[in-house]
Amino acid sequence: MADIPTAAISRLVTYLRILEQLEAQDISRTSSTDLAERAGVTAFQVRKDLAYFGRFGTRGMGYTVPILKRELVRVLGLNQTWNVVIIGMGRLGQAIANYPGASDYQFQYVGLFDVNPGIIGQRIRGLTVQHVQDLPDFTRHNRVDLGFIAVPPDRAQDAAQGLVDAGVRGILNFAPVVIQPRTLERGGLQEISDEWRAVIVENVDFLAGMKRLAFYTLNPHLKETPTLTEE
Amino acid sequence: MADIPTAAISRLVTYLRILEQLEAQDISRTSSTDLAERAGVTAFQVRKDLAYFGRFGTRGMGYTVPILKRELVRVLGLNQTWNVVIIGMGRLGQAIANYPGASDYQFQYVGLFDVNPGIIGQRIRGLTVQHVQDLPDFTRHNRVDLGFIAVPPDRAQDAAQGLVDAGVRGILNFAPVVIQPRTLERGGLQEISDEWRAVIVENVDFLAGMKRLAFYTLNPHLKETPTLTEE
Repeated sequence: MADIPTAAISRLVTYLRILEQLEAQDISRTSSTDLAERAGVTAFQVRKDLAYFGRFGTRGMGYTVPILKRELVRVLGLNQTWNVVIIGMGRLGQAIANYPGASDYQFQYVGLFDVNPGIIGQRIRGLTVQHVQDLPDFTRHNRVDLGFIAVPPDRAQDAAQGLVDAGVRGILNFAPVVIQPRTLERGGLQEISDEWRAVIVENVDFLAGMKRLAFYTLNPHLKETPTLTEE
Repeated sequence: MADIPTAAISRLVTYLRILEQLEAQDISRTSSTDLAERAGVTAFQVRKDLAYFGRFGTRGMGYTVPILKRELVRVLGLNQTWNVVIIGMGRLGQAIANYPGASDYQFQYVGLFDVNPGIIGQRIRGLTVQHVQDLPDFTRHNRVDLGFIAVPPDRAQDAAQGLVDAGVRGILNFAPVVIQPRTLERGGLQEISDEWRAVIVENVDFLAGMKRLAFYTLNPHLKETPTLTEE
């Protein structure tokens, strides 16, 4: 599984979402051509992306929707429970906590944190919002797999450092800043510090989406469009 | 400017965000190596991505932060005003309307729409929330460049169709569904209908971010990591 481009992982996520929609419509068969059209890529791309992870479907026969869906769920690691804390419970944190579908994939919110005395102590989705300074103690007593950052931009780096210090190794950053790993000088070179080495940061950035949209709205001919190919 | 991969556009957006952070720290010079480390890609990738759009910087001298930033702003079309409507003014729509930074890029909210009588008539950021059935009339009397969809998943396709019918050609979809263009049968083939042909849909999907994070947290060795290279 070496050298799988990150864009392929993003596309797998899109294929999975399409398979869920097909299943909701009681459609039980699909093909790389069908998936490609719905995802806005080529059928060759679909087959190549899936081939990184094994052989799915039968040549010339397409795919069985629930089977391919189950396989993608497994590949993406969504068949296990992920315990999640949210740092920042303003409008954005609350929108995240209430975003539909997270619990379908066993993303379970186990702790909600803020610094605002007006929010701390409120109950949201059955959890009491805690002060972020209680995070280290919380992670000592509870398994936390992932941390979601929903704080203002100027607080995001500190929130990330707090999560990493508390032992959280997967971060989803909703703030419009690039989180930087802590670096140390070692033998005259800047190196990523040990506690950051295994940390994964993914971003959900509203502004990035707006900027991509602006670019493609001005340059629609540059948008990759599906080419109909034979299966 | 043909055949620029969508991943390159996403990376340009990341480089721009890094340049903004450098500028905020009063750092006036950078290099492809520096940008690469901060973005988590290779310096070769940075140079290749920038080369699609012209020659920036001087060989061996790196880049001047404000100049490269200005050029990326221009390339992405962010030096013009974008008039935006939001469809769906629940928690998510309100989080979007209040997300910091949108106005820095001249994304201007000009209309807010919902179907909930409890929300219609409320004033949010100086605008009165209107019923979504008033959207066609609104777009006849106001320039609308982009529409942001923040409705529940089962309403997203209808919201997109409403925007397209009202003449909006750029859509940012925050709902966790894949928006499908309307198709028509023509000569036995399914074809994308004329009004959808020029429509750009970009997605900001919280769940997609969560799924990518789950995958990379399980498979950290597959995360593209920067390779230090000489400029």
